[in-house]
Amino acid sequence: MQLGMIGLGRMGGNIVRRLTQRGHQCVVFDQNKSAIEALAGRGITGSAGLEDLVHRLEKPRAVWVMLPSGEITENAVTQLGDMLEAGDTIIDGGNSFYKDDVRRAKALKVKGIHYVDCGTSGGVWGLERGYCLMIGGDKEPVDALDPIFSDLAPGRGDIPQTAGREGRDPRVERGYVHCGPSGAGRFVKMVHNGIEYGLMQAYAEGFEILQEGAGAEVPEERRYTLDLPDIAEVWRRGSVIGSWLLDLTAMAFAEDPKLAGYTGFVDDSGEGRWTIMAAIEEAVPANVLSAALYARFRSREKDSLADKLLSAMRHEFGGHVEPKAGA
Amino acid sequence: MQLGMIGLGRMGGNIVRRLTQRGHQCVVFDQNKSAIEALAGRGITGSAGLEDLVHRLEKPRAVWVMLPSGEITENAVTQLGDMLEAGDTIIDGGNSFYKDDVRRAKALKVKGIHYVDCGTSGGVWGLERGYCLMIGGDKEPVDALDPIFSDLAPGRGDIPQTAGREGRDPRVERGYVHCGPSGAGRFVKMVHNGIEYGLMQAYAEGFEILQEGAGAEVPEERRYTLDLPDIAEVWRRGSVIGSWLLDLTAMAFAEDPKLAGYTGFVDDSGEGRWTIMAAIEEAVPANVLSAALYARFRSREKDSLADKLLSAMRHEFGGHVEPKAGA
Amino acid sequence: MQLGMIGLGRMGGNIVRRLTQRGHQCVVFDQNKSAIEALAGRGITGSAGLEDLVHRLEKPRAVWVMLPSGEITENAVTQLGDMLEAGDTIIDGGNSFYKDDVRRAKALKVKGIHYVDCGTSGGVWGLERGYCLMIGGDKEPVDALDPIFSDLAPGRGDIPQTAGREGRDPRVERGYVHCGPSGAGRFVKMVHNGIEYGLMQAYAEGFEILQEGAGAEVPEERRYTLDLPDIAEVWRRGSVIGSWLLDLTAMAFAEDPKLAGYTGFVDDSGEGRWTIMAAIEEAVPANVLSAALYARFRSREKDSLADKLLSAMRHEFGGHVEPKAGA
Amino acid sequence: MQLGMIGLGRMGGNIVRRLTQRGHQCVVFDQNKSAIEALAGRGITGSAGLEDLVHRLEKPRAVWVMLPSGEITENAVTQLGDMLEAGDTIIDGGNSFYKDDVRRAKALKVKGIHYVDCGTSGGVWGLERGYCLMIGGDKEPVDALDPIFSDLAPGRGDIPQTAGREGRDPRVERGYVHCGPSGAGRFVKMVHNGIEYGLMQAYAEGFEILQEGAGAEVPEERRYTLDLPDIAEVWRRGSVIGSWLLDLTAMAFAEDPKLAGYTGFVDDSGEGRWTIMAAIEEAVPANVLSAALYARFRSREKDSLADKLLSAMRHEFGGHVEPKAGA
Repeated sequence: MQLGMIGLGRMGGNIVRRLTQRGHQCVVFDQNKSAIEALAGRGITGSAGLEDLVHRLEKPRAVWVMLPSGEITENAVTQLGDMLEAGDTIIDGGNSFYKDDVRRAKALKVKGIHYVDCGTSGGVWGLERGYCLMIGGDKEPVDALDPIFSDLAPGRGDIPQTAGREGRDPRVERGYVHCGPSGAGRFVKMVHNGIEYGLMQAYAEGFEILQEGAGAEVPEERRYTLDLPDIAEVWRRGSVIGSWLLDLTAMAFAEDPKLAGYTGFVDDSGEGRWTIMAAIEEAVPANVLSAALYARFRSREKDSLADKLLSAMRHEFGGHVEPKAGA
Repeated sequence: MQLGMIGLGRMGGNIVRRLTQRGHQCVVFDQNKSAIEALAGRGITGSAGLEDLVHRLEKPRAVWVMLPSGEITENAVTQLGDMLEAGDTIIDGGNSFYKDDVRRAKALKVKGIHYVDCGTSGGVWGLERGYCLMIGGDKEPVDALDPIFSDLAPGRGDIPQTAGREGRDPRVERGYVHCGPSGAGRFVKMVHNGIEYGLMQAYAEGFEILQEGAGAEVPEERRYTLDLPDIAEVWRRGSVIGSWLLDLTAMAFAEDPKLAGYTGFVDDSGEGRWTIMAAIEEAVPANVLSAALYARFRSREKDSLADKLLSAMRHEFGGHVEPKAGA
Repeated sequence: MQLGMIGLGRMGGNIVRRLTQRGHQCVVFDQNKSAIEALAGRGITGSAGLEDLVHRLEKPRAVWVMLPSGEITENAVTQLGDMLEAGDTIIDGGNSFYKDDVRRAKALKVKGIHYVDCGTSGGVWGLERGYCLMIGGDKEPVDALDPIFSDLAPGRGDIPQTAGREGRDPRVERGYVHCGPSGAGRFVKMVHNGIEYGLMQAYAEGFEILQEGAGAEVPEERRYTLDLPDIAEVWRRGSVIGSWLLDLTAMAFAEDPKLAGYTGFVDDSGEGRWTIMAAIEEAVPANVLSAALYARFRSREKDSLADKLLSAMRHEFGGHVEPKAGA
Repeated sequence: MQLGMIGLGRMGGNIVRRLTQRGHQCVVFDQNKSAIEALAGRGITGSAGLEDLVHRLEKPRAVWVMLPSGEITENAVTQLGDMLEAGDTIIDGGNSFYKDDVRRAKALKVKGIHYVDCGTSGGVWGLERGYCLMIGGDKEPVDALDPIFSDLAPGRGDIPQTAGREGRDPRVERGYVHCGPSGAGRFVKMVHNGIEYGLMQAYAEGFEILQEGAGAEVPEERRYTLDLPDIAEVWRRGSVIGSWLLDLTAMAFAEDPKLAGYTGFVDDSGEGRWTIMAAIEEAVPANVLSAALYARFRSREKDSLADKLLSAMRHEFGGHVEPKAGA
């Protein structure tokens, strides 16, 4: 079927590629003209702007927005809301806040425009592996978009079936799910990313404990200098902690055994934060997911006030003078 | 080759099965005679006790101990140390404390007996999938046992190769690794389990946040009743958080969508605790792994003193009277 | 000076008592008539409702709202905003959300009505000890209310002066501070409560570790049965961890050495949650304050989904069957 | 009475001063001769070494060891054990590990020598304020040393009495307590320090949240530039979170409002670590105390492997390239 795509970054560009490889037509736009040019190919039509993109689509139109979350996405959805007509559908496939989805869907519904939130996981690998899609919105537009979702998702592939799922929604086993009303898809994607932070931090702490097993604080007779690339690799094979993130860890270690090319500065995006806020709103204890988020905050700090205050108290009560770091 | 096996529980029994299916001979013993009888089959010889088992093995002997960690394992190793001779090897494949491995290896070395620690991951699935093996000890006995390790490990299977590993130790890609001197294998297995706790808790918190998204504290317009079995399943397919533990989660949800058959009482074994102790010894911040361990401790408490003291302070300063739980 | 007081609960009633003991006049209202009657005394005038209260005050009026945070406070402020006139002042002394203060102050400013947020700490002890006041709003109304703030605050008392504060705002040493524009006072009070949770939890964990030092898991030669009431008391005297919360802990233990009268069910109010949300907005790692909040959430859960999922995974990979709690 | 003192650092020196000001006689030794000379005064006798110190004491002797924990203390206790006689007493007042106390007491008991562990809190302020003493050991030597303990402790002072303690051990209200058998005093002191870490970190996080309330991530209308020295001061007066550590915080801020003189490098000593190990041994969830310890570990790290691994995974799955810190 035909789809408009706004935003041709790492995610949007590959979604267009995957769809057109499977016979769909895409009308595309990006602020950056070279991104449009880079995509030229069978089934892909560039456009000069949102208005032009909308005009090039047949009714009822479907426009996928794949932009950085926040103002940029908000503006695109607002503008599309003014250009589209009853029966058309906007899909936001980015990392918006689910409360914004609820609000937008309500505002667009007044005009008869459908709004679908689609949490999209898979990263730069999605072109090849397919994307795991977590969808929220009304049944009608979600069903109408099934050809798109079905081709973006990985399909059954060679992932073993789970016993006991006979008779359940078959879309799920092909890698996409209609989670519920507006915001539900993004809510699920948000928690997915919250879990992702937790998993990543669990591996990160574990590998650091392995590395520091060679540290001078450890008595010599059990001071181990371990080959982290080998350990990451072996755990992929038959261990309880095998995962896709571990596959990536093994790749990273194979390329750069000391990870010397990486800084210790780790960014975070909204979903990790919103997951904690949802946990707090629901009164769910989320120590692991919070600690994973805070580790990223901490990675970006230098000489924090909190640490200075600890040193100051230690000085006041005990006369302790802290050594300078690295001294 | 020939191997003695002491302990025929879920792990030891399956290891014997896997080995004998691949042409090895095992002389076995378990306190529980029916466990020995249940194993009878080609390549398997029962024995009447440790002494008998030792006598039935050809020199140089190799005896694998697969018993609950702690005193039971300790006693078995001590007794074997008295029965075996220079050139023989004891393999402890259980969940011993790595510092005990260091001590035992040292004591046995005096008699010329080799001691190999082998962290064994794979659970009840290992018979079929193979076991991920993390091995510590001297090169000589580890190399001599290669036929055993190689057949216990999963082999390459259909797990994709990691780019950049050309020319590296090929055993690793078949699922076993010689980590270093005595204790090193078990140290790696210990951290493996520490990570396992962290991964499990990350999923656990995430699914609880999803479930409580339907809670009364959430405003109605974004109160989502989500299908957790479907979400567990869809995340296995193309998402960033796919893993073997998630496969198991999807199985558990497919069998029992509310997990109604499980109590909220979660056990822990030594490795999770020792991982934190190692982190503390090394001064590695391990907030996620600790929180995962504490969640298990907390699951087993009822009306803890800590909580009562909070209520008591609240009463003293604010006159607050807490409602009774469930009231 | 004259002050209107709306809300005569534990906090509002005592504030009126403290003020009238010091020569101020209060016009008071509470939904609960008996609360008004209970307060009758020199300098205190009851009223029949907000309208009546407003009419009984001389201009420019000052009305203090001391109600449960949320809708009740919001409604009272809204109604007062309709009844009061330019030059009058509303003080919200409760536990509102600081973002609500910003919004309300802005809306009232249009009408020339001042809005002052006053974070009020001291609990049921404030009548006698005085209240620590954290104030936000414009300079003009804050200065005009100085007689009130000054008499509510504890004054210098016998708390030792801090060296190096010569020449600084003397109000601070009398126990009240003008923190900044609207919301600033409440923001400071919110963080105060966030810290309070952290301090309480630190003591709570510590006393539980002391208590469990007598547990069966501890080897007999260092299994200590400690007298917690004595330990709480002795720490008040010369130790580094002396505090008012510890004084209260010692009281609670002296009254009820096993805290048997307290459930393990601990409530939380908004400030602890908002503190974490502020930390997340600011990207400040707040592991301790979060863990303190989560401990309260956890205290109210029973058989959480998170814990069940851990048991389910353990069953799937290891065949583990958890014992029933208490079994 | 007469006391030998070994170790004249910040703690040992002040203990001698406090005791001799109150009429006791001390025979002292320190490796550093100038420390001995600096102490010369009424009631104080220097000595040339342990042997000399022992000879200068009347039987039954009491020798207080106040040295850095670990080998130095261990050696001193061992040497004293060889020099002293049945009926003499060694007091270790430092920060030893309580399991070492149990071991030492047992070994010395064979010779009839008493061993008393005395957790000593109060820091550089103890000379003036007195020391809070947590004592472990047999009743006989603890009672014999009562004149010493009584004069080291703060006494009742002006700290209000706790209702309900009538008829209980009066020593406790004078600031010292006999906790139980060997190790019990130090165990209590260890947990005291664990709590201390938690309290400190709660304040530290709170003040950082206050400071970052002025950060650029916060919307302008509620971006507060707060006066942290004033807030620390005001909280000392009538608030729920008043404490001695807060008094010290107010001092530190009064001296150096930005804490510019402190690095963000925070040391830790054994007690914080051992507290967590005890919690783990007892299966007590200790999220706050652990997080406080880890914050110190983290303050000393730079570009940790854990953080690098997070960046590496982010790069592998999402193509994310982290900015350099400070760039």
